[in-house]
Amino acid sequence: MPREITAFSNPLIKRVRQLREKRHRKEEGLFLAEGLRILTEAREAGRLPEFLFFARDNAHHPLVRALVADTEAAGGDAIETNADILSKLSGKDNPGAVVGVYPEFGPALDDLDRSTAPIWLVAERLRDPGNLGTILRTGDATGAGGLILIDDCVDPFSVEAVRASMGALFTVPVVRTSWDAFQPWLRSGPGQLVGLSLDTDHDYQVPRYDAPTFLLTGNEAQGMPDFMAAECDLLVKIPMLGKADSLNAAVATAVMAYEVLNQQRCG
Amino acid sequence: MPREITAFSNPLIKRVRQLREKRHRKEEGLFLAEGLRILTEAREAGRLPEFLFFARDNAHHPLVRALVADTEAAGGDAIETNADILSKLSGKDNPGAVVGVYPEFGPALDDLDRSTAPIWLVAERLRDPGNLGTILRTGDATGAGGLILIDDCVDPFSVEAVRASMGALFTVPVVRTSWDAFQPWLRSGPGQLVGLSLDTDHDYQVPRYDAPTFLLTGNEAQGMPDFMAAECDLLVKIPMLGKADSLNAAVATAVMAYEVLNQQRCG
Repeated sequence: MPREITAFSNPLIKRVRQLREKRHRKEEGLFLAEGLRILTEAREAGRLPEFLFFARDNAHHPLVRALVADTEAAGGDAIETNADILSKLSGKDNPGAVVGVYPEFGPALDDLDRSTAPIWLVAERLRDPGNLGTILRTGDATGAGGLILIDDCVDPFSVEAVRASMGALFTVPVVRTSWDAFQPWLRSGPGQLVGLSLDTDHDYQVPRYDAPTFLLTGNEAQGMPDFMAAECDLLVKIPMLGKADSLNAAVATAVMAYEVLNQQRCG
Repeated sequence: MPREITAFSNPLIKRVRQLREKRHRKEEGLFLAEGLRILTEAREAGRLPEFLFFARDNAHHPLVRALVADTEAAGGDAIETNADILSKLSGKDNPGAVVGVYPEFGPALDDLDRSTAPIWLVAERLRDPGNLGTILRTGDATGAGGLILIDDCVDPFSVEAVRASMGALFTVPVVRTSWDAFQPWLRSGPGQLVGLSLDTDHDYQVPRYDAPTFLLTGNEAQGMPDFMAAECDLLVKIPMLGKADSLNAAVATAVMAYEVLNQQRCG
């Protein structure tokens, strides 16, 4: 049976609210996700929260009931609360129907089986949580095997990244690693590393991309460093006709990932 | 000669700071842009600020000097200030070197000449300013003639939209209009309306897109209403292999816009 919390002063509310900050996520190994759509996506992917908060008004919604039942069956804590507290937890004026607190997860590089997917996304020093979440969402849609985060990327478990992923955080494996670990792992098996670059004349539609293709996207402001570009088997450029000299990093990754997917689905 | 303001209490500082809110932008007909890259893009597109704020430390940067000279030559006000005030104006801890205050602009539908570009972007009830800015940036890159905003879209002059556009707000014409005005204008000349939809089996890579193609992207959460879908000459879907049922709106627009561009550049 769900218990009830309606006091802002409750220590659990304070503790959960603090998970909006990276420091507390790191200490606790927990993160926040919100909204019925995202939590249902998580449930369908077999991820259930340690704590599930829902508003009494939504208690009879079938998806809320399913979340409560599965959370409790898995040993988690389902907590009935009110819109004000949900609002405080989510940091939004119009909170979703539910907020969940999940244990952080994520495979190691060596857990990935590159033969299971034709496309793998790799990003280095990605700084924007919205870009990270959007790239995960694109990874889900294009059948990517996972997202490999190189060096100092933004936290994939930040509230903004989880929100922008629209649930793909729970379905697309995310590995956090370093270039020094990634490079030897990459070369220990088949696959080509394809870098998105502004410093090349190779049109992205010309090469044939064989599986597995590892698509490397560089830092939003600076692109990738020269030593990473030098390690790429192929550097390609998306044509730009306008005044601006680059695309948004999540957009560029998506245009490129769809090119790889389109080649493969067209045989 | 630039004048100097270093007091937070200066009424102009307060007035400019308020332009972060839509209500004040509307009253004043002015908006904020920040960062040397974006303001230089604007200058190159012939847009100069009414007020230009720069920190003394950056006064000798050649791009800052060019901005100051051109702003003053056009009758604008160049104001030397400090990092704290720039920070206050931009709302960021690490403000760019410059902040500019520009008069809002934007053509009317009847000012657009559809024969000048093969692609035109159309968005209805777009709610996220980051998506709007990112779509403008993509529009610049794909040679779109403009972005037509239908019905209740987010303000293209919001700080977040201007920032995400990376300067494309100044190079890609933005029209704010209604469906009731757009529909007859669309049908008064050549061009097909192509809607991105989840409720169709038509793969986006199958049709040939003739110029001018108007690409319609619907609201992030709901997609476009049925009556708009019914007006489309073509509804197309981007394939999605994963668990999620949609792509980010700016990503979907970009994947689609590059398909149109790629068909045209390949003859």
